[in-house]
Amino acid sequence: MDYVIVRYIGKKPKLKNPILIEGLPGIGNVGKLAVEHLIDNTNAKKFAEIHSKDFPPQVFINTDGTIKLVNNEFFYYKAKKKNQRDLVLLTGDYQGLSSQGQYELVEKILDIAEGLGVKEMFTLGGYGLGQEIDKPQVLCAATDEKLVKTMKKHGAVFKKNEPGGGIVGASGLLLGLGKLRGFKGACFMGETPGYLVDPKSAKAVLKILMKITNVDVNLSALEKKAKEIESIAQQLKEMETMSKDKSEELKYIG
Amino acid sequence: MDYVIVRYIGKKPKLKNPILIEGLPGIGNVGKLAVEHLIDNTNAKKFAEIHSKDFPPQVFINTDGTIKLVNNEFFYYKAKKKNQRDLVLLTGDYQGLSSQGQYELVEKILDIAEGLGVKEMFTLGGYGLGQEIDKPQVLCAATDEKLVKTMKKHGAVFKKNEPGGGIVGASGLLLGLGKLRGFKGACFMGETPGYLVDPKSAKAVLKILMKITNVDVNLSALEKKAKEIESIAQQLKEMETMSKDKSEELKYIG
Amino acid sequence: MDYVIVRYIGKKPKLKNPILIEGLPGIGNVGKLAVEHLIDNTNAKKFAEIHSKDFPPQVFINTDGTIKLVNNEFFYYKAKKKNQRDLVLLTGDYQGLSSQGQYELVEKILDIAEGLGVKEMFTLGGYGLGQEIDKPQVLCAATDEKLVKTMKKHGAVFKKNEPGGGIVGASGLLLGLGKLRGFKGACFMGETPGYLVDPKSAKAVLKILMKITNVDVNLSALEKKAKEIESIAQQLKEMETMSKDKSEELKYIG
Amino acid sequence: MDYVIVRYIGKKPKLKNPILIEGLPGIGNVGKLAVEHLIDNTNAKKFAEIHSKDFPPQVFINTDGTIKLVNNEFFYYKAKKKNQRDLVLLTGDYQGLSSQGQYELVEKILDIAEGLGVKEMFTLGGYGLGQEIDKPQVLCAATDEKLVKTMKKHGAVFKKNEPGGGIVGASGLLLGLGKLRGFKGACFMGETPGYLVDPKSAKAVLKILMKITNVDVNLSALEKKAKEIESIAQQLKEMETMSKDKSEELKYIG
Repeated sequence: MDYVIVRYIGKKPKLKNPILIEGLPGIGNVGKLAVEHLIDNTNAKKFAEIHSKDFPPQVFINTDGTIKLVNNEFFYYKAKKKNQRDLVLLTGDYQGLSSQGQYELVEKILDIAEGLGVKEMFTLGGYGLGQEIDKPQVLCAATDEKLVKTMKKHGAVFKKNEPGGGIVGASGLLLGLGKLRGFKGACFMGETPGYLVDPKSAKAVLKILMKITNVDVNLSALEKKAKEIESIAQQLKEMETMSKDKSEELKYIG
Repeated sequence: MDYVIVRYIGKKPKLKNPILIEGLPGIGNVGKLAVEHLIDNTNAKKFAEIHSKDFPPQVFINTDGTIKLVNNEFFYYKAKKKNQRDLVLLTGDYQGLSSQGQYELVEKILDIAEGLGVKEMFTLGGYGLGQEIDKPQVLCAATDEKLVKTMKKHGAVFKKNEPGGGIVGASGLLLGLGKLRGFKGACFMGETPGYLVDPKSAKAVLKILMKITNVDVNLSALEKKAKEIESIAQQLKEMETMSKDKSEELKYIG
Repeated sequence: MDYVIVRYIGKKPKLKNPILIEGLPGIGNVGKLAVEHLIDNTNAKKFAEIHSKDFPPQVFINTDGTIKLVNNEFFYYKAKKKNQRDLVLLTGDYQGLSSQGQYELVEKILDIAEGLGVKEMFTLGGYGLGQEIDKPQVLCAATDEKLVKTMKKHGAVFKKNEPGGGIVGASGLLLGLGKLRGFKGACFMGETPGYLVDPKSAKAVLKILMKITNVDVNLSALEKKAKEIESIAQQLKEMETMSKDKSEELKYIG
Repeated sequence: MDYVIVRYIGKKPKLKNPILIEGLPGIGNVGKLAVEHLIDNTNAKKFAEIHSKDFPPQVFINTDGTIKLVNNEFFYYKAKKKNQRDLVLLTGDYQGLSSQGQYELVEKILDIAEGLGVKEMFTLGGYGLGQEIDKPQVLCAATDEKLVKTMKKHGAVFKKNEPGGGIVGASGLLLGLGKLRGFKGACFMGETPGYLVDPKSAKAVLKILMKITNVDVNLSALEKKAKEIESIAQQLKEMETMSKDKSEELKYIG
């Protein structure tokens, strides 16, 4: 078995100047949530699966009792309006576990993208702030200065020295290794507390992506999820406060 | 040396439509205990050994003072009744230590199985609950819905979202990578506290396997081992209670 | 993708009997600071980049919002005086993360150096003492006794059994693997507390390198940085003393 | 660079039915001490070095200021008496760091040994008991029952279920992988507390080896080292007792 293997489901799709959009698991699962929502809303078709020796040796169990080997999955969306472009969408269960696994995985993704005619890509992720955020901004970094300007117009934010550690993982590496091959692209990082999955941040990222791709997405499902998560976060906070109060009470007993 | 190597002992056996049954070490050693018991009871013949660079660099010492390199071992059983099928049985000292090691090992096992004409497999393991269990159930997951139905008839249990983390290790990966090659199969997971080796859980798994394979196995040796383990567990529990009592006594001294 | 890849920027430079000087990140970042300062001061030209699967899967974000894949970089300097020699300068963001990654990286660096006609090299690093140092000495180790003598003349210090653990990382491995290929060379290790980046130690290393290479470097920028770091170190020390005083005060309350 | 590389120093030696004796670093450094002592006493000649990507990326510094890349080293000894046999002696700075590294290293050692006509080997190590030992016994395990008998005659001890974890590392793997190639051999494990290097245990191992190989070794240097280590151990013990006494004194103050 090669380090990373691709299995096409049916024929390789024929696409016209497609854009690659990646959202794999990461901080707040922002990227994964955004791309999954995009796939659901656009009825994108799955056309390939990636398996890697650097994914965990694991199968998930579907609700019908059947198993599913952990993987990454490719979908495509054919442009339906003149101002749209074909899309290649990538999401999955895991990123590579090791440095080597990440490089191998990303190189294979780029091979596939190149084979489909992709020259431009957007990678999606979260930027963990470790604190509550009312209105998450979407930070950005791009392969070239022209794209930096364009993304600013679409509302993406560029802050000097942020994120300080750069971009770690597939979202960064796709741009980095892609740039060496001549790809252009940008990474959108939705601000997130980073403690729980963050549909609010994913929504912020999708809003920018909608402007760029002219693909309209109904964000209500994501908004509903965001409210659920906020309610869970609120409950966790109350439980914490209660347990704090109790331990303070105890201190003053007697 | 290749990552994983196979050494046949004598000739490769000629088998008719055989079923692969795997039980490697894992939680409660349920799978390993079950397959070892099956091998002993059916007088199955060893025909191959697997060594891997991802096993520990270790030899065991036999009671006669000779050494044995850690490995996985293949056995076969030829059908003795009309309603039986030939069996390929796999057990061993270790699973692969790393993700990559697991993928390499499982691919090699599938290569060997394919070469022997295997198209169906059952993988055995434990499902750790972290608490005592009176009558362990046998959870199941399968490669396709038809098998799910069949296994339900044989008494295997399917619970939504259990195990929540899916199946990690060789038992899961054999089904996952096997499914990509067209193998059909199911994984049986005997419920187990997971603290000690668990012959009781292994017995529960074997009972289902006996129904499926029509191979009769005398379970008395396993039952005897189960009683020994229960006695050890009981002693550990009493020691724990005693030490708790003592420390409470100490608190009330004076 | 190979484990380590090289990308030349434009043509491979034609150099005459060049010396390789390496300064990758390490204790006190002494080597990296020294080589970066040398590159800036000599206007050395970048001619190649190295990427490795054993570097982190990471891009940095430049101040203009563009991304840069983490790498190692080669520069060259053409001799401008009769008593100088051409230089090949190596610095970068990371060393290999694992043992294997270090061996692969260093072998590739040696391949490139050999292709450029390098037969001699100087590797630069820090020697962490874990305490403040007024005048950092520069310890040395070399591939052969003749070089040991020469380096002593230039002011490098050889202490028996120091560093006790030898030299770990690219600076040591370049000499070690290089020696097997017939390269000659020495490693200069500037003494450093090792807590912060240490431009003072880098300056001490550069001073010796200036004698050997006859390349004059204006050290004022490095001296300025050294003062900044000393001021930061002083502030950290004062903060520590203050917090100690406070906690002692608290002990004597009442 | 291959995973493991061999460099011959001069010509490959021509040996007659030689025995391989291995002593790499391990518990109490028993094996390494024994083989190094054997090399010194027999004036064995170095003929090859092994480097591996799985050794640390490290050079040691010799007392003359020159560097030495960490390695394993092969020596040979030509039989000088009729009852002796040629010896191939292996020692070194490190074993492989990972499982894969150990398998790769041992396979390469076996390749070299096979090329020299080796069919028999003795591997040396320590068996850590975690407590002081007056007269260390030498435990043994062998590739076949005939050798078990022979080794018993020479004073080696076989205990059921000891060492319980078998033999981990190069000493075990050489026998295990060697047996698959038809090598015969035994591993001698000198009992050792395992806290410090243990020349006393190394001496016990060498005594047996002298009977088997008919090579006489002057053990006085090893005895001297053993006394030094005992004196250090005694001092450590006294320091420990003193600090215990002091802390008990403190408890009873006032």
